[in-house]
Amino acid sequence: MSEKKQYTVIFQPAGSRGLIEEGKSVLQASRELGVEIEGICGEKRTCGKCKVRIEEGFFEKFGVTSSPSHVSKRMPVEDKFFTPERVEQGFRLACVAKVQGDLVVFVPEEARAGGQVVRKAVTDRKINVNPSVRTYCIEMVPPTLHDPLGDYERICDALKAQHGVEPPILDYKVLLGMPDTLRQASWKVSVSVWTGGPAPEIVRIAPGKVERSIGLAVDVGTTSVAAYLCDLATGEVINYDSMMNPQVPYGEDVMSRITYAMANEGGIHKLQDAIIEGVNTLAARVSEAAGFSHTDILELAIVFNTAMHHCFLGIYPEHLGLAPYAPALHHSINIKARDLGLKFAPGANVFVLPNEAGFVGADNVGVLIAEEPWTKNDRQLIIDIGTNGELIMGDNRKLISSSCATGPALEGAQIHFGMRAAPGAIEKIYINPEDKEPRYRVIGKEQWSDEFEDKTSIGVKGICGSGIIDGVAELFKSGIIDKTGKFVKGIESPRLRKGEQGDEYVLAWADETSIGRDVTMTIKDVRAVQLAKGAMYAGAKIMMAKLGYDGLDRVVLAGAFGSFIDREESLTIGMFPDVPVTKAYAVGNAAGDGARMALLVANNRLEADEWARKVEYVELSVEPTFEKEFMMAMHLPHMKDSFPNLKAVLAEEGLGDLVKG
Amino acid sequence: MSEKKQYTVIFQPAGSRGLIEEGKSVLQASRELGVEIEGICGEKRTCGKCKVRIEEGFFEKFGVTSSPSHVSKRMPVEDKFFTPERVEQGFRLACVAKVQGDLVVFVPEEARAGGQVVRKAVTDRKINVNPSVRTYCIEMVPPTLHDPLGDYERICDALKAQHGVEPPILDYKVLLGMPDTLRQASWKVSVSVWTGGPAPEIVRIAPGKVERSIGLAVDVGTTSVAAYLCDLATGEVINYDSMMNPQVPYGEDVMSRITYAMANEGGIHKLQDAIIEGVNTLAARVSEAAGFSHTDILELAIVFNTAMHHCFLGIYPEHLGLAPYAPALHHSINIKARDLGLKFAPGANVFVLPNEAGFVGADNVGVLIAEEPWTKNDRQLIIDIGTNGELIMGDNRKLISSSCATGPALEGAQIHFGMRAAPGAIEKIYINPEDKEPRYRVIGKEQWSDEFEDKTSIGVKGICGSGIIDGVAELFKSGIIDKTGKFVKGIESPRLRKGEQGDEYVLAWADETSIGRDVTMTIKDVRAVQLAKGAMYAGAKIMMAKLGYDGLDRVVLAGAFGSFIDREESLTIGMFPDVPVTKAYAVGNAAGDGARMALLVANNRLEADEWARKVEYVELSVEPTFEKEFMMAMHLPHMKDSFPNLKAVLAEEGLGDLVKG
Repeated sequence: MSEKKQYTVIFQPAGSRGLIEEGKSVLQASRELGVEIEGICGEKRTCGKCKVRIEEGFFEKFGVTSSPSHVSKRMPVEDKFFTPERVEQGFRLACVAKVQGDLVVFVPEEARAGGQVVRKAVTDRKINVNPSVRTYCIEMVPPTLHDPLGDYERICDALKAQHGVEPPILDYKVLLGMPDTLRQASWKVSVSVWTGGPAPEIVRIAPGKVERSIGLAVDVGTTSVAAYLCDLATGEVINYDSMMNPQVPYGEDVMSRITYAMANEGGIHKLQDAIIEGVNTLAARVSEAAGFSHTDILELAIVFNTAMHHCFLGIYPEHLGLAPYAPALHHSINIKARDLGLKFAPGANVFVLPNEAGFVGADNVGVLIAEEPWTKNDRQLIIDIGTNGELIMGDNRKLISSSCATGPALEGAQIHFGMRAAPGAIEKIYINPEDKEPRYRVIGKEQWSDEFEDKTSIGVKGICGSGIIDGVAELFKSGIIDKTGKFVKGIESPRLRKGEQGDEYVLAWADETSIGRDVTMTIKDVRAVQLAKGAMYAGAKIMMAKLGYDGLDRVVLAGAFGSFIDREESLTIGMFPDVPVTKAYAVGNAAGDGARMALLVANNRLEADEWARKVEYVELSVEPTFEKEFMMAMHLPHMKDSFPNLKAVLAEEGLGDLVKG
Repeated sequence: MSEKKQYTVIFQPAGSRGLIEEGKSVLQASRELGVEIEGICGEKRTCGKCKVRIEEGFFEKFGVTSSPSHVSKRMPVEDKFFTPERVEQGFRLACVAKVQGDLVVFVPEEARAGGQVVRKAVTDRKINVNPSVRTYCIEMVPPTLHDPLGDYERICDALKAQHGVEPPILDYKVLLGMPDTLRQASWKVSVSVWTGGPAPEIVRIAPGKVERSIGLAVDVGTTSVAAYLCDLATGEVINYDSMMNPQVPYGEDVMSRITYAMANEGGIHKLQDAIIEGVNTLAARVSEAAGFSHTDILELAIVFNTAMHHCFLGIYPEHLGLAPYAPALHHSINIKARDLGLKFAPGANVFVLPNEAGFVGADNVGVLIAEEPWTKNDRQLIIDIGTNGELIMGDNRKLISSSCATGPALEGAQIHFGMRAAPGAIEKIYINPEDKEPRYRVIGKEQWSDEFEDKTSIGVKGICGSGIIDGVAELFKSGIIDKTGKFVKGIESPRLRKGEQGDEYVLAWADETSIGRDVTMTIKDVRAVQLAKGAMYAGAKIMMAKLGYDGLDRVVLAGAFGSFIDREESLTIGMFPDVPVTKAYAVGNAAGDGARMALLVANNRLEADEWARKVEYVELSVEPTFEKEFMMAMHLPHMKDSFPNLKAVLAEEGLGDLVKG
């Protein structure tokens, strides 16, 4: 076999260059050279986010001649993403175009994967600390010829005599350094005993007296990863940090990553390596900033959705992506950190919270143990809005759960100008019902758009999830679209026009953006939001029927995203059934809180397994009424249902007629 | 820093060649080039076994000029190992001479580390099988949308319903392949559950019905490693194999290896890697020959002495080599095979038997659980003669143990012509009291020396352990040496002469050997044996005093070596106190049997830990009477003690006057 040819590929404006094997896609080349290009669909050629321009000519600076003929031929699938003008300029999808010669590739700003604003903060919850790892300082008499007892047995005797602790078993990796540590520390050491397994086990022996024992709680979201460094004795959050999920380049949503793992040899290992390395990096960062080492971490408690759970553990997620969506396991599992490649204390354990069902993961169990809905007697709906919508409904008598494929629309994907919650994203929108003119606010700027003297400094790049919900709600409230989501005919406004996708509304003129094009919301965007919210609403309705509820008393919005959406606007589009607006509230990253509570309270682990089993999962796709409920829930806010609470609020704005009371 | 120069080094007659960095010893060079050179002392420059000749001149075949000046200068320490003639010929110690130019090195036959005859066979013992791993075949109904239970939970349900087995926990590495195995095997699998830990655990899931579950018992001796492949359900030894301990090149005895580990950076890891790789090789060989794969091995039970225990686990053995010789742990320990780099079934466990004391290791505990001395009421002495002598004494009321530094004399080291039990080693000796002429037998030949017509085909290379004991006993019985070990003056025989080391007896003339020199037993050899046997005898006497014994009823010789020594000759030299010759017997590799019994009988593991703790260790070196006992025990068979049983046997040969009745 002859070796494959290699060509020089240079990415602009980053300037990264390197040799790339013939036949690799420009997107693959970008990854190898460390250039981040947006991609939501996992190279399925459906999202059209990875637009790049192949430059033409001789580049003296690099000594390279680039030409559109140096990449594979244009494919029909690319047509819908480019105007003829852009085709002319050499624009291509990076996931389609394959390297066949030297190349200079320009990555336009909207295709650059920027640093996202990660919005998972620490919530203050009352926790009765009872950790699974406790550290005991012991002092021993050194061995003599008359007392040549083994080191381990000497430690056990001291633990018993000085702390009343029964002999724990010994982790192998702790044994390795033990004889030296004991002698170097003159027989005064701190022994950390983990009691989360079937038998107490020594997971670290540190010289001298260790003042503070630390553990880590991690919430792996589809898009971001949050880590909480905790004092295991007091429960205090010592430090907090977060990062982008390093799996994002392999697909922005869960299904894209499952597809990536299935379509690429070794794909699952790439996904696993990425998240393990990510957690290692985050663990080092969050501990070092607080004056610790990552090797001080005595235990990790971690939550994620079921697909991320499988990817983190390195389990091929194929079966999870196909009906009947059975996960490899529901139960929690304890795994030695080293078995996963995590660099913590020598014998450190990883407590992986249980999954409820194929699409209701450990993160949802985290929400459960943080929220404890079984302690309240009012009828609650807990929505964890991530890339999937996960619903828990019930009270202190019964709890059920379900999951709906909302699609990534609410997180900015499948939306013409959708983007993640990063600087430049429109996050809040108001449209004046009189003149149909908007005001909006972008992430990273303090003023609203109408407060800028120089519009060109607003720098809009796109619209993020909360902006999209606002947008649809405002289009509806201002009468631009009707309750079916259609654009109302005959409204006079320069902002209303026909675009490539049909009717559209210009939210920001090109000069207000940094991408040089009008940022719009299109009829297709509205439809995508309707599909997402319709699925959630229909799910809630079916669950209410199962429980015999004729209404809800409380809606809890969990998840980082839930903290940033406007509850009135969410209610306006009918994301969930009517409740008093004050009874719909966000609880922040409840999944992360759940991980923290599992880390700090041994009993919560039992509760997690118990409730993961007790919560009855409702598979919406096999419910006979789902289709009808879904259709009715596509309307804004609903085809038939009454919204007395919403009506009252809208009435104050003179818009009471929009909804049924 | 500039790189070190490299020179071509060629070993003859093997013909191995390669580039070696300047300053490395010829011994290091031999290891790098895969040439085995004898070395007993672990490069301490004391054994003198690694004699090599540095060739002089231009070797056309290799295009290399070699010269004695191409190695570092001769050191005074080398003088005692070479006659001036050999110095002239260019002989050097390979561990001293350092590479300083191109070299052709000749390795004489006596310095070649040959393939030893490994003498550990399977002993037939009655075992009531009750293994720690059991395999259950289960069949399941595949998941559906109405029954999307997780794979693990589905397995647990089937184990419970079909076998009444409570839910085991799941090893992480088993989890990894589980979803695929289940589906490929159409939901019929064999689940192996290990119950040796604090909670039952799934350690393998194999497709279909597995007919036979296998485990491995391994006995790591200082010199050889034996492996027994067992059927975990029936206890049958399916296959058996052994190999040289791959740590031998790093030192032939325990102290040499401890020294090697301490003196060389990363030395402990080299020792560990060597034995782990050895066990992997042996496991693959023993299972493949029986139609299995090494990945079928569900558990390993392993024994060794304390130093080998530490080296196997990768624990720095420094503290074990220095007073007070405290081991890192006494207790048994369970370690995942993967944590040690062992390639067995995904979740396979390694059960490491407990140590009794710093120098009484898990192999001795193996002897204990194989022999069960606590079940008998006669006064027993169990001697495990390896490179160290390990003694257990007692009855069903009390057991004590001790260890004596016999030194490696009984295994052929520190003996002028000593060697391991390999082809060419004299293993049996008889000396005619009349004419003082010997007859002997060498390993690998069926005839005795006097039965050869052509003496030059005998091919003596040296004397192994059993031959050395025979030699001293025969020199004593034939009146050549007296009870103090001195050569008796005035005996007329061409075989008696003064050599470099003083008085010596020629056992084989040069023409009967393959090394071209007379093979002798010297006054120093006799002294070394006296030291070794004196230590053991003194140990036994002190132990008898502790137990209040005025005699012994039984002496059990455990260890491979024990099976090959002549019990009458051993008694003659006074290796142990007098017992009827028929009551001194060998039990073969009891340590290996103990490993097998721990593998096959769960209860034996508890017994091992219990007895390792109950057996009281006597540290001989701190006993005030030891020195005096030792001095008296140096005599043949003893300065003062009576040997009525031995006297009766010798009387039949007309030698009754030699010992006190």
